[in-house]
Amino acid sequence: MTVTASGSPGASTAPSARSAAPSPEALCRYRRAADFVAAGMIYLRDNVSLREPLRPEHLKPRLLGHWGTCPGITYVYSGLNALVRRTGRRTLYVVGPGHGAPAVHANLWLEGTHADHDPALGRDGAGMAELVRRFSWPGGFPSHLSPQVPGVIHEGGELGYALSTAFGAALDDPDLLVACLVGDGEAETGPTAGSWHCPKFLDPVHCGAVLPVLHLNGYKISSPTVYGTMDDEELIDYFRGAGWEPHLVDVTAVTADTAAAAGTDGTSGTDSTTLSTSDSPDAARADRLLAETLDAAHAEITDLQQRCRDGDWPKRPVWPMLIVRSPKGWGAPERDSRGVPLAGTFHAHQVPLPDVASDPDQLELLERWLRSYRPEELFDEDGRPAPDLLAVPPEGDLRLGSVPQANGGRLRRDLPLPPLRPHAVDVPSPGAARVGATDTAGRWLADLVRATEDRRDFRVVCPDELESNKLGALLSVTGRAYTWPVPGYSEHLARDGRVMEVLSEHLCQGFLQGYLLTGRHGLFPCYEAFVSIVDGMVNQYAKFLKMAGEVAWRAPVASLNYLLTSEGWRQEHNGYSHQGPGFINSLLNKKASVSRIYLPPDANTLLVVLRHCLGTTNRINVVVAGKQPAQQWLDLDAAEAHCRAGAGVWEWACNDAERGRNPERPDVVLACAGNIPTVEVLGAAWLLRRHAPDLRVRVVNVVDLLVLSPARRHPHGMDDEEFATCFGDGVPVVFGFHGYPSAVHELLHGRADPNRFHVHGYLEEGTTTTPYDLLASNRMTRHDLAADAVSRARGWSSRGGAVAEALHAERDEILRRAHRDGEDPEEITGWRWTA
Amino acid sequence: MTVTASGSPGASTAPSARSAAPSPEALCRYRRAADFVAAGMIYLRDNVSLREPLRPEHLKPRLLGHWGTCPGITYVYSGLNALVRRTGRRTLYVVGPGHGAPAVHANLWLEGTHADHDPALGRDGAGMAELVRRFSWPGGFPSHLSPQVPGVIHEGGELGYALSTAFGAALDDPDLLVACLVGDGEAETGPTAGSWHCPKFLDPVHCGAVLPVLHLNGYKISSPTVYGTMDDEELIDYFRGAGWEPHLVDVTAVTADTAAAAGTDGTSGTDSTTLSTSDSPDAARADRLLAETLDAAHAEITDLQQRCRDGDWPKRPVWPMLIVRSPKGWGAPERDSRGVPLAGTFHAHQVPLPDVASDPDQLELLERWLRSYRPEELFDEDGRPAPDLLAVPPEGDLRLGSVPQANGGRLRRDLPLPPLRPHAVDVPSPGAARVGATDTAGRWLADLVRATEDRRDFRVVCPDELESNKLGALLSVTGRAYTWPVPGYSEHLARDGRVMEVLSEHLCQGFLQGYLLTGRHGLFPCYEAFVSIVDGMVNQYAKFLKMAGEVAWRAPVASLNYLLTSEGWRQEHNGYSHQGPGFINSLLNKKASVSRIYLPPDANTLLVVLRHCLGTTNRINVVVAGKQPAQQWLDLDAAEAHCRAGAGVWEWACNDAERGRNPERPDVVLACAGNIPTVEVLGAAWLLRRHAPDLRVRVVNVVDLLVLSPARRHPHGMDDEEFATCFGDGVPVVFGFHGYPSAVHELLHGRADPNRFHVHGYLEEGTTTTPYDLLASNRMTRHDLAADAVSRARGWSSRGGAVAEALHAERDEILRRAHRDGEDPEEITGWRWTA
Repeated sequence: MTVTASGSPGASTAPSARSAAPSPEALCRYRRAADFVAAGMIYLRDNVSLREPLRPEHLKPRLLGHWGTCPGITYVYSGLNALVRRTGRRTLYVVGPGHGAPAVHANLWLEGTHADHDPALGRDGAGMAELVRRFSWPGGFPSHLSPQVPGVIHEGGELGYALSTAFGAALDDPDLLVACLVGDGEAETGPTAGSWHCPKFLDPVHCGAVLPVLHLNGYKISSPTVYGTMDDEELIDYFRGAGWEPHLVDVTAVTADTAAAAGTDGTSGTDSTTLSTSDSPDAARADRLLAETLDAAHAEITDLQQRCRDGDWPKRPVWPMLIVRSPKGWGAPERDSRGVPLAGTFHAHQVPLPDVASDPDQLELLERWLRSYRPEELFDEDGRPAPDLLAVPPEGDLRLGSVPQANGGRLRRDLPLPPLRPHAVDVPSPGAARVGATDTAGRWLADLVRATEDRRDFRVVCPDELESNKLGALLSVTGRAYTWPVPGYSEHLARDGRVMEVLSEHLCQGFLQGYLLTGRHGLFPCYEAFVSIVDGMVNQYAKFLKMAGEVAWRAPVASLNYLLTSEGWRQEHNGYSHQGPGFINSLLNKKASVSRIYLPPDANTLLVVLRHCLGTTNRINVVVAGKQPAQQWLDLDAAEAHCRAGAGVWEWACNDAERGRNPERPDVVLACAGNIPTVEVLGAAWLLRRHAPDLRVRVVNVVDLLVLSPARRHPHGMDDEEFATCFGDGVPVVFGFHGYPSAVHELLHGRADPNRFHVHGYLEEGTTTTPYDLLASNRMTRHDLAADAVSRARGWSSRGGAVAEALHAERDEILRRAHRDGEDPEEITGWRWTA
Repeated sequence: MTVTASGSPGASTAPSARSAAPSPEALCRYRRAADFVAAGMIYLRDNVSLREPLRPEHLKPRLLGHWGTCPGITYVYSGLNALVRRTGRRTLYVVGPGHGAPAVHANLWLEGTHADHDPALGRDGAGMAELVRRFSWPGGFPSHLSPQVPGVIHEGGELGYALSTAFGAALDDPDLLVACLVGDGEAETGPTAGSWHCPKFLDPVHCGAVLPVLHLNGYKISSPTVYGTMDDEELIDYFRGAGWEPHLVDVTAVTADTAAAAGTDGTSGTDSTTLSTSDSPDAARADRLLAETLDAAHAEITDLQQRCRDGDWPKRPVWPMLIVRSPKGWGAPERDSRGVPLAGTFHAHQVPLPDVASDPDQLELLERWLRSYRPEELFDEDGRPAPDLLAVPPEGDLRLGSVPQANGGRLRRDLPLPPLRPHAVDVPSPGAARVGATDTAGRWLADLVRATEDRRDFRVVCPDELESNKLGALLSVTGRAYTWPVPGYSEHLARDGRVMEVLSEHLCQGFLQGYLLTGRHGLFPCYEAFVSIVDGMVNQYAKFLKMAGEVAWRAPVASLNYLLTSEGWRQEHNGYSHQGPGFINSLLNKKASVSRIYLPPDANTLLVVLRHCLGTTNRINVVVAGKQPAQQWLDLDAAEAHCRAGAGVWEWACNDAERGRNPERPDVVLACAGNIPTVEVLGAAWLLRRHAPDLRVRVVNVVDLLVLSPARRHPHGMDDEEFATCFGDGVPVVFGFHGYPSAVHELLHGRADPNRFHVHGYLEEGTTTTPYDLLASNRMTRHDLAADAVSRARGWSSRGGAVAEALHAERDEILRRAHRDGEDPEEITGWRWTA
C-alpha cells in the first residue's frame, strides 16, 4: 500500500519484484501437479503419490469434496502466478467457488505457503501425504475454503459475495490487484448480479483494481447455469452494458478444435469434451491464451490507473474482465463405467466416481485418471515437486496465498479516534437538553474521517441513507464515491469519496467485509428494518470471525460495526414494512465471542459506544440509536461510567417516597433498553410519582444488552450479584425493550425467576400512524408501562388496579384526541422530564 | 386463465373485451387529474379541490409521502389503461416503488376500484376529500402500498422483489400480462439485478407475459442512481445481453426539445427540466410515445406467445421490455423559494416543499403547483371527474386495480392432495424400518404434481437442490423449467417444467410469493443454512400476510411452505458455513397468526405435516426434515395422531422400571424436537435403560414447536394442563433440540419454572467432520443427553454422577476411535433402537 509523498499513489510497481515468467509448458506441468494433488485430496488417505497400485484401503472412508470447479480454479491460479511473475503486481485471489478448496490447497502447497504456516505440510512426499489426508477429515481442513486456509478472505460456502468482497479489498490500496473468480453458479445470485456495477464506485487513483474472472464451466449441482447458456454475444453485451471491457478465454473452443481434428462427433450429449491437463499442445494453448489475455487486461488496468493518477480521467473508467469457459471437472474421466458422462457435465460437480470403494471398475477408472497426470514426471523420489514447478509461483509475499492483505489484521492500525469532548452534548441535568443522537455522532465521525484523510483506512458504507439517518455531517468532509458521469444535478459526489452509498445492503456488507479483512476499519449505518437483508451474509461472517479467532496466525481484524437507526418506533411515517427489530435476535445466535449489542439511550452514550466499538477487533457490534431530536439524559462523564458498566440504576429517576432516591427494596423495577423505551420508561416513572407517590420505583437502563445473559453464557453477562444490584431480588420488573420481547426472554433463561420480568417490546403491530399510536398498539406508551408496573408492584395488588385504570383512561383520551383532531400526543401530555 | 380444450392455452383474448382507446389528449388530462389528487394526498386535509385559496389550516399536520416517483407511476398506469382498452388484455400492474402509493390511490379512485371496496371513496368530491385525507393518517392508508390497497400483490417497502414477484404471478396464467414497474433505486439491489434473467425460466406456452418497465427518474433518496447514470447504449447492451428486447421511452428527450426551443439553458444544474403535466403538446407527445411503444411491445409479446403456442419455438424466446426516462417529481415546481432545485432532482423524492405550513412562499408555490393541474377543468361542481377521464380506464375486472389475480385467494382452489397411505412407510414397531424422509415425501409430492397436471396450480421452487435434498422423484413427473438453449449435456429440463431451480433463494422466494398471491400453491425446499438469505423477504411477506388477514375483501391465499432439509447436523461434509438453524428463530418473531414451525421426526410424520401445510392458508409453514436414510418411529396412524396433538409422550420409549411404561412421576423427562435430536434422545433413553435401569424416564417428542409457547401467546400453545401431561410438573427436562437453544428458551418464557428445561441444541460449533463429531462438539450425542439427564434427575444427585462419568467415558472412547481410525461411530456403538 504505497502512496507517494504527495499523497497521490503511483501506479507502477517496483521492477525488482518482477521475475522470470514461467513458460506455458511449465504452467501445464504445474497444473498437472496441482490437479493431481487436488484430486487426491478428494479420494485418498494413503498411497497419495501412487507409488503402488491403487487399492480400496488407500481410499478415504467418506468421499467428500467438489472436483468440478477445481481445475478451473487452478487454471486461473497458475495464470495469475505467471502474471505476478511477469509484472511483480501484488495480487490477492478471491475465489468465489469456495467448495473448490482442494485446488487452493494444492496451489498453497506447491507455492510453499502451507509449509510456512505448518511444517507438517512441507513440499515433499510427507507434506503432500499429510495435506491430502487432512482434507475433509475430522480435525483437518474443511471441504470449503475457510479462515484456516492462508490467502483466504472469503469462505464461499454461501454464494454471492465474492465480487463485492473483492471490491472492498481493493479500496484504498492503490497497488493491489484483486483477482476474483466468480463461478457461474454464484453468478445466478442476486448479490453477484448487483455487484457487476461496483466499478462505478471504485476510484482508480486511490484504490487498487479488481479483475473479475467469470468462470463458466456450464453447470451448477445438477443443471446448466444461466450464464453458461448465454452465448458470447449475450455475455459481451451484458458485461459491456454493465461498464466492463470483457475478454473471452474459451478453453472449450481450444479443445473443440482438437476434438474436431480427432474426429470426435458431437452426438455424445456434451459439447464440452474433456481437455487433458497433460502437457498436450492443447493444454499449452489454453495457458498461452490465458497468459495473453491476462497481460492485455493488466495493461488496460495499468493504463487506466496511470491515466487517472495523472489527472487525465476518461469519461468512464472502464476496467477489463475475463470470461473463462472451461469444461466442468476438466481432466476427469469422460464417462464412468456405466456410461454416465462425467467431465464436462454436472456429474463432475462433486465426487465424479463416488463408488470407487465398492466398484472395481470405478477404482480402475480413478487410478487411470490419477495416473494420467503422470505424477512420476512431476515429483521426485522424495515427493518434491520438480524445480520447474517450484519456479511457477512468485516468491515470498507475492505468492497468492501469502499476500499480507489476506491476513489483514497484520496491517491493521488502531484508528486515531478523535476526542469525544468537543462533540459531547451539555446535559446540565437529566432531560435538560434536546438533540439528535446520530446528528451528534455524525459530527464526531466527520472528525474521524478527517483524522484518517491520509491513511484512508476508514470508510462508511450505507444504502443511500446517510442523510436520512442524520449523518450528513460526514458529507461535509468527504463525498459519496462515484466515478460514472452523472447527468443532471447532484450533491456530495466525489470520485475519491470515502462514503459508499448504494441502494444494496448486500454490496455495502460485501464492501465492508473485504475492507475489514484486509486490515481497515468501517461503519455500516443502516435502516434497522432492512439490515435483515444481509442476515445470511452476517451469519457467514460471524462464522468466519469465530473460526479466524481460532487460527493462530490470523491477526485480529477491526470489528464490523452497524449503526442501526431509523428504527421502527419512528418509522410511523414509512409504515409497517419499515418496522422490524429482528436483527438483534439474529445476532444473539452468534458465538458469544463475536456478537455485541448496544442500545445507547442518548447522544453522549452513543458517542461512547461508537468510540468503543471502533476500537475493538473480531466482533460484530450492533448499535441501535435514534435520529430524531430527543431529550438527553447523561452528560459525557455519566455516559462513560454508564457504558462501562453496561447497565445501571438511574438514581435520579428512581422514587423512594421517603428518601427520594433509589429504594433499597423497590416495589417494582422499571427497566429499559433502547432510546424510545427509555423515554417511555422515564415517562412512566414520572407518571407514577404523580399517580402513586408511595410506590417505590427503581429505574434501570441497559446499554449493553448482553449484560442480561448469565455470566456463564456470555462474557458481558452480569454475575448474579451485579444482576441483583440492578434488578433487585424477586422484585417484579417491567421492561421496556426496543426490540422483540423474545430477545430479552431468551437472554434471561437461566436467571433465577425469569418470569418476574414483564417485557414490553415490538409486537409486530404497525402501520403508518403517529409515533404515539405505534407505541400504544404495541402496549409500550408510558401509560401502559406505568399501569403494568403499578399492577405488578409488590404489595400493590389492592391499590394498583385503580391507578392502572386511571392511567389507561388517560392513554385512551390521548389517543382519541390524536385520532380525531390530529393533535400531537406529546403536546397533549405536556410531558418533559424534569428532575 | 383460459386454457383450450386441448390443454394448450390460446394467446388471443376475446375481442369483446376491447373498447375504444383513449386519445393521448385524454390521457394527458387523466394524468393531470391523477397527479393533482396524488399531490393533494401528500399535503392536504381540507380544501382538496382548491375551491378556496389554500391556507395553512388545509394542510396535514405532518407531511408524509413520496412525490418523486408518483408522476411516473401514473404515466405508466394511464398508458397501461389505454393498452388494456385497445387490446382487452387482462393486466396486473406490479409497482416496485411502493412508496409512490399516492399515485396508485389516485388511479384506483379515478377508475372506481376504490369505490367498489368502500363507498366512502366514491368518484365525487366527498370521495376525493376522504381519499386525500385518509392517506398517511392514523387509521388510514399507509404511505406505502400495502395489502389494504386493491390491485396490490407487492408492498415495495423493502426494495428488490417486484420483478421476481411479477414473474411468479405470470406463471401458469397464459392470458395474463404482468406489467412491472422497476424503479431505478430498486434496480441497484442484487435481487432485482438477478431478476433480469427470469425470462429464461418462463414458458410462453403455459405462462403469461411479464413486461418490465424500468423507470429511470435518475435519483434515489439523495443521489443519482446507477442505472440513471448509464447511457442509452449501455442500457441497451445490458438488457439485450440479459435476453430482452429493450424499448426506450425517453420523456426527458421530449422535454429537452421543447426546453431548447424555449431557450432554457443547461446551466441550471439539471438536465431534466420540468415537463408540465398539463395538456401541452409535450405531454401529449409523451403519452403518444408510450402508447406506440406499449403497442409494439404488446405485439411482440402476442407474436412470441402465438408462435410458441403453435409449436414454432424461436431459438430464444426474447421478450420486450421498456426503459422509461422521466424527470423525478415531474410536475413539481422547478425550484423552491430559496432556489433549491426540486423537479428533476432528488429534492423531489419525498415532500418537495416541506415547510409549507410555516413558510408563506412555499405555501404559495404549492398552491401554484396544485392549480397548474387546473382541477376546475377536470372535475365538475360536485367533484366528479369529467366524462373523458372516466373513459380512460378499462371497465370491470379489466381495471388494473380490479384484476382478480391481485386478490388471488378468490381464485385459489384447494389442492387435490393425494392420499398418504400408498407412500406411508411400513413401521411394524418403532425403529423397524429405515428410509429417507424427504425421499418418501418426494414420491408423494410427485403424486401431487401429477394430480395438478391440468390445473397447473402447484409449483416447486428450489435453489438447484432438489436432487441433493432427495426430492428427485419430482423430476420423474415434471422438469426443471428452462427456455434458453442449453449447450451440452443436461437432465430433466423442460420448457413447461413446474420445478423452478435457480441458484438464487431471492428468485425462488419472489416466484413463490407472486404465485401464491395470485391464487396458486407451492413448496420451497431449501438448504436450511441458506434460507436466511431471504430473511428480509420473509419479514416483509409475513407483514403482508398479517395485514392482508385484516382486510375484509382479501380472500385467504395458500400458505408459503418451506421444506428445510440438508440441515446442519448432516452438513458435516460441507462444513461450518452449511450449519445454521436460525430461520426458526426468525419465524418466531412473526405474528402468531402467521408462523408455524414443524419438526417431523421421521417419514410418516413428514407426510402428515406436509399434507397439513399444503391445505392451510395465510401462513408461513416451516418444516424441517432429514434427507438421509434413518430409523423410522411411527406408522401412519400413529403419525396422524402424533401430529394432531403436536407433541406427545412416546410410551414405547419411556422407562418405568416397575411398570415398563410411561412413569406417572418420572425422575426426568427426555424431550426432543427434530429428526436428529430424536435419534439421540432415543439413544439416550436406550443408554439409560442399561446404565441406570431404575431411573424413571419419560420420552416426549415435539412435532409442532409452537406447542411450547404458553396458550395465551400462540394459538398452538398447549394449556398448562396439557403441558404438564407432557413435560410433568417440576420435573427436570433435558431437551434435545434441532436448532439454537435460544428458540426453546424464548418459547418457554411464561411457563412455570422454565429453568427446569435444559436445552441442548446447536451451539455454533461446527466444521467438516463426522456427524458424530458435530453432535459431540455441540454436546448433543446420546451420551451427552443421557449423562445430563441422569445428573439432573430427581433423587439421583448422589448416584447420577458416577453414571454420567461412565457415559462421558464411552463418548470419549468413540471419539478417539473415530478420529484415529476413521471408524464410524454408529458402528462402534452398534446402537439401533429396538423395542
